[in-house]
Parts: sequence; C-alpha cells; structure tokens
Amino acid sequence: MSNKIARGGLLSRRNLLKIGGTGSLAGFLSPTQAAENRMNVPGKGLSEYGDQSKFSQLKREQLSTHPFGPSAGASSSPLQALNGTITPNSLHFERHHSGVPDIDPSMHSLVISGEVNKTLRFSYENLLRYPMETHVYFLECSGNSYRNTLPSALDQSAGELNGLVSCAEWTGIPLHYLLAEAGVDKKAKWVIAEGADAAGLTRSIPMSIMLDNAMIALYQNGEPLRPAQGYPMRLFIPGCEGNISVKWLKHLKVQKTPAYTREETSKYTDLLKNGKADMFSLRMEAKSIITSPSGKMKLNQKGVYEISGLAWSGTGAIKKVEVSADAGRSWAKAEFQSRPHPLALTRFRIPWQWDGSTAILQSRSTDTNGNVQPTREAALAPYSDYGFYHYNGIQSWSVDNNGVVRNVYV
Amino acid sequence: MSNKIARGGLLSRRNLLKIGGTGSLAGFLSPTQAAENRMNVPGKGLSEYGDQSKFSQLKREQLSTHPFGPSAGASSSPLQALNGTITPNSLHFERHHSGVPDIDPSMHSLVISGEVNKTLRFSYENLLRYPMETHVYFLECSGNSYRNTLPSALDQSAGELNGLVSCAEWTGIPLHYLLAEAGVDKKAKWVIAEGADAAGLTRSIPMSIMLDNAMIALYQNGEPLRPAQGYPMRLFIPGCEGNISVKWLKHLKVQKTPAYTREETSKYTDLLKNGKADMFSLRMEAKSIITSPSGKMKLNQKGVYEISGLAWSGTGAIKKVEVSADAGRSWAKAEFQSRPHPLALTRFRIPWQWDGSTAILQSRSTDTNGNVQPTREAALAPYSDYGFYHYNGIQSWSVDNNGVVRNVYV
Repeated sequence: MSNKIARGGLLSRRNLLKIGGTGSLAGFLSPTQAAENRMNVPGKGLSEYGDQSKFSQLKREQLSTHPFGPSAGASSSPLQALNGTITPNSLHFERHHSGVPDIDPSMHSLVISGEVNKTLRFSYENLLRYPMETHVYFLECSGNSYRNTLPSALDQSAGELNGLVSCAEWTGIPLHYLLAEAGVDKKAKWVIAEGADAAGLTRSIPMSIMLDNAMIALYQNGEPLRPAQGYPMRLFIPGCEGNISVKWLKHLKVQKTPAYTREETSKYTDLLKNGKADMFSLRMEAKSIITSPSGKMKLNQKGVYEISGLAWSGTGAIKKVEVSADAGRSWAKAEFQSRPHPLALTRFRIPWQWDGSTAILQSRSTDTNGNVQPTREAALAPYSDYGFYHYNGIQSWSVDNNGVVRNVYV
Repeated sequence: MSNKIARGGLLSRRNLLKIGGTGSLAGFLSPTQAAENRMNVPGKGLSEYGDQSKFSQLKREQLSTHPFGPSAGASSSPLQALNGTITPNSLHFERHHSGVPDIDPSMHSLVISGEVNKTLRFSYENLLRYPMETHVYFLECSGNSYRNTLPSALDQSAGELNGLVSCAEWTGIPLHYLLAEAGVDKKAKWVIAEGADAAGLTRSIPMSIMLDNAMIALYQNGEPLRPAQGYPMRLFIPGCEGNISVKWLKHLKVQKTPAYTREETSKYTDLLKNGKADMFSLRMEAKSIITSPSGKMKLNQKGVYEISGLAWSGTGAIKKVEVSADAGRSWAKAEFQSRPHPLALTRFRIPWQWDGSTAILQSRSTDTNGNVQPTREAALAPYSDYGFYHYNGIQSWSVDNNGVVRNVYV
C-alpha cells in the first residue's frame, strides 16, 4: 500500500502509523548511543520566576538597526524553534516607535472623550473591576515578511523572515462596555487611539471594528502585560495589523472622521501600481509558513521528517492547509496539530520522506471565508515596488542535495 | 427591574450592562484623578528575552521549607494576581523531589523496555521528528490545597492555599505511537515511568491511561520545556495528579504489574478512615476557587466587584460553576470568561455588589460527567486525619465589614 499522498515524498499519517506498527519507524529514526542519564546529586532549588535551560537559550531575533536607533525597531519571534501555537511572553515579537516605557499603573489613566455623552477617565484599578473576556489571538505586524517583497531572496531563518507574528491568550475588557458607558454619538464612525509612549503613536480605527471584538487588554498568557506589550494596558484588535492595537493606551477620542495621523500618511498605507494608496487597509489576510524544515536548517540524513508550520487569517479561522514538496505542482492536505480557533495561529503538520534529492517546500492556507493564500507573484501584483505591508505570499524553502534549507523565490 | 440573581449581591451581567448604558457604571467606578501620562523621552530598546514590569514583580510563592532542604519542596502560582487561563511558564507551579537538573539533551535518551517486542532508545533529536499534538491542559499537584485539610483555616492567599495548579499549552508526541512501535505484550497492563533526577522519581501508570491521552511533552506554551518542568522531556498525563507526569523522563518499562515504588507506598496513597489506603487514585476531581476577591485582599470601598475564578476537572470539561455570597445558602450561575476545554482550567466570573456588610464567597463546579465539587466536610469525610491528597472541597472566603478577605471554614 502506497503511503505517498503527493509527489516529492509527502506521506499520509495513517499509513505512517501502519509502518510504525510493524517496527520500521525505529529503522529510520536510528536510536542514538547516548549513555543513560541519571543525576547523582540534587539539582537547583525552587525559584521565584523561572527561566530557560542553559541548553535552550532562545531569543528574539533583532532585525536590522533602525535609522532612528535601537528604540525604534523590531525584534521577531524565533518561529523555527517553537512548537504549538502560543508564543511565550518573553519571545512575543516587539515593534516600537520610541522604545519601551515602563509605566507606573497608579500614574496612568485611560480617557474616553470626543463625541460622547460623558467624558470618562479610568484608572487601572477601576478597569480591574470590569467584566473581562479571554481569547487566544494572533498579532501580526503589518510589515511582517516584508523582506520577501525585496528583489532577491535573503538567506534567513523563518523567524528573521516571518517572525513579526506571535500568538497569546489575551484577557481584557470588551471595549463596547466602555463605549456604551460613555454614550457614543450615532454619527461618530471613528475612534482615535493614542499611546503614552514618547512617539505618541496614534491611529484612527473604524467604530464598527471597535464595537465588534476590540478589547482593552490587561493580561497576556495569564500575567499582567509586559512593558514591551503595553503595560499597564493596550488596545487589542484581533485580526488587524499590529500597530492599531495601540500600546500604553491613554486616550480614545470618538469622532466623525479619521484623524489622518502621521502613521496614516507617511506609513501604514499601501502604495498601488496606479500611484494611489490604500488607506486603513487594516485586516491581515490568509497566510501560512512552514517553520520546520526552514531557512538555515540542515537535514543531516535521509528519512522521514515532520513538516510543521503555522497558519492564520485575520478574517476567520483556518479551514485548510496544503503542503507541496515540488514547488506547487502537487499538494497534499496537512493535518491540524491544534484545533483551529478564529483569529489565532493554527499549527499544521505532515510527514515527509526526504530521499536526498532537491525539493521545494511550500504551504498554502485557506480560511473559513474562502480566502486562499496567494503565490508571491500574485501577492505583489497590485502594489508598487515600494509597497511592502500586508505581504502574505506563499513562503518557499529549497532543500538542496546536502540537506541545506534556504529561502527561495519560485 | 432587579438585577439580583442570588442573595448577598450577586448580579446578572445583562442587567449590569443596562445600568452601564445609563451611565451609572461610571458612578460606582469613580474615575481617579491620575494626571495624563505621556513619555517625553524614548523608552528602553529591544530585548532578546523579555521580562515583567518593575511595577508587577509577580513571583511564585515558596511554600514552607521542606525538611529535606530547598531542593525537595514546592512553589505555587500566584493565582490571585493572574487572569485568563494560561499560566506563564515562569510562574507555573514547581514540585521537586531532589531539585532541578538542567540536562544536556544530547546526553539524554528515553528507553522503552520490558514486555515489548523490541527495546527502543530515542534521542531528543529522534523525538523531534515524530508527529506531535498540541493541547491546553491543567496540571495539579495531588497535594494542592492540603492546607485546607488542616484543623484551622490559615490566613493565606489563593496562591499559597491552592496554587499548586497551573495550565499551559503542551506539545508533544502521543505516547501510543511509541508504544505501538515497541510492540506491547497484550498482558502488560502497567508502565513504570522513571525520571533522571537524583530522586529517581518512579511511578506505575495503568496502560489504559498511557494509550489514551498520555504524551511525551517537549514544548510548553510554545517554547521547549523549562528545566523545572522536565527539560528536555517529560511524561504528561492530563487530568491526573502531577507527580505521575514524570519529569526528565528517561525510562518507560512495560510490565504486567505495578512496581509499588517508594512513591506508591510511603506517599501518594490516600489513607481511609477504616485504616486501608487507596492506591493509584490518580484522577483529579471537579474543583474551583475564587481567585478575586481572595485571601489577604482588601476591598477599599463599597460597590460592584468582578468575582473571578478558576474551575477544572480531571474527568472532563467544566459544565457549570455556581457562586454564592451567603455561605452556600443561595447560588447563582457564573459566566464562562473563556471557552471550557476538557482537562483545562476554565475562567468564570460574575459581578457582585458589596454593600459593606460581611459575606462568605464560595464557588462550586460541575463537570461534563456530572461530578459536583463537594463541601469541605464531604470532601474530608472518607479519609483519615492524615489524608491530605486530592482535596477538592469548596473554598470559602469571608469578607468582613472592613473589606478584609480571609480563608475560612464554614
């Protein structure tokens, strides 16, 4: 019985298990000769706030220095070393416009003003007494994967190329509670959100989004937000480009029109081929990447590998992920390793038998709204050469006959 | 229209929102006079591995010193300061029998032997090539909440009393794959799991559990396990007492009978009133605790508070949580703040109007199998005075007329 479900060595898990049942999995996963490992002395004692193993010193990858200095840059999650769907808080991607303030919550407040019945000011303590919701959501920088819009493919890791996306369990107050309390004028269609950082990052967000599933996030993966994620409070708008989830949130101003801030004119618009620019293109689209095998890895021997990756969409849940080992000529449906949740990262996987020859590995996601992740060519088509936001083209990894994995364009 | 849904001030969220719509929420959540907070200088730059705010230095609570020294004790999650359901890795509870070894994965292996067709030895690298699964599961120490079995109620926090329970997204290899590969003798009904720590912690686990949902866990909340959680690999058996999820797992021995190890004779059995002991009572039962308001907190003013808590069961998902503000005389159904998943923590909440008088707050969970969390009295009834494992009695918090919250027995 063949266990091939697409060309290039993609295998069905069902048949893989049948092979396993007859003992041949042990064959291709050659057991090592590692000595039995047993401690003879007690290990370290308890700790107040734990840390990684010295043998697993994962860190965020610092993207190239920003011209404005280290306080205005980004660092990305090391996707190639992670598994599951949650990003631990210490490795959640960062993007700052003027560094990371560490704000005393007793000195911070959130004001809701503008076209409202009543201007409200909330302290952190006030907000802790409101009803909260808890959801697992991804967050993606609008510039994530922009390096793959450049003319030549860079030889970088999955995290360096695509790691401005992370996923966490966010807990906070549904914003519609607070807007209802302030009493919003029916003609007011926009909310202007402003952060307390030195950049005063400010974005205009449609009221429809604010009343849908926006929240004032206070906790990330169970603990209070980290300063790099906006402590003591941030706006969180699932499915949309990260910068509108304004960190260190201090002010929400309700108005009839957008504010056309610096972030909406000099940045975060998409320049089209016809010279016009898409503004307020906030929603992130269907996307996926294979995280293993991926750029800068090396396969040391022929045999079966687990292809593992992440898929997500800003418009719904992931419905399907397909994987190709022959540059998109044939595709096999991957399995979900985690249950797909709306607006969250989904982990997919599929076994793959590498026969030692060259291969091109790709993944393609489809969301519950029928959006299909485009090829690189199709993803770039509408935009000018200077457009690099919202890039969601298929990521291609080549495997050469030495097992070296590289980012390529096909 | 009344918004009371049980005595003692428990409110319906629906009616709370109606009040909010008319502006009176702003009344009882008096806005503070905090000055507007705006940074004038850039904040800190990017970091490789992030940390908490200096204003939120959460830490695990070190339980009283163990007679064998600091390497044989426990530290608990600060439940009263967390929200949502995930416990960040740095705050996941710890329980060690001989400290925390930090093992080089290249020197570690896992052996499956005993009543099998073929003895197998797996390196860490081998295991990374196997199919994985990802699930959110709670983990609870069998001794969690044992202090509430003592004759007098201790004035401690929710974490000190009940914090030997945590919840994470665990990713690993379903154990049935590896057992199928080894080829298990049909008469072999037990697996003996042994850790590489200096205590050589060893437990006997029924084969039925091992073939159901046990996994070799390699990742916790996305990143490789921390040493305190068994890096490079641990057994993970959802729903069961934590100590059988053997950390630093080195050996699984398949046999026809249990091993009756030290951990199964001197410990981890439940001494009954009739002098006999329950052995291999592994499953954790339906339980819940209110985490806010909770022990050692103080309510500074009358008004509406959000009662928030956690519920879980080792036999399924949480179906219902009820809350009482009058020591169990009347109950109201709480809302779920997070979607209940099987064998995971579920966050519940209900608004409560404190009128300044004394109150006793309690929560009671029911799981999908119909198990109902018992009163303290009923939970203790079957056991001798020396039995303190698997305690799941209802936690009671008193609020006095100064707003001080204390652990009490009722």
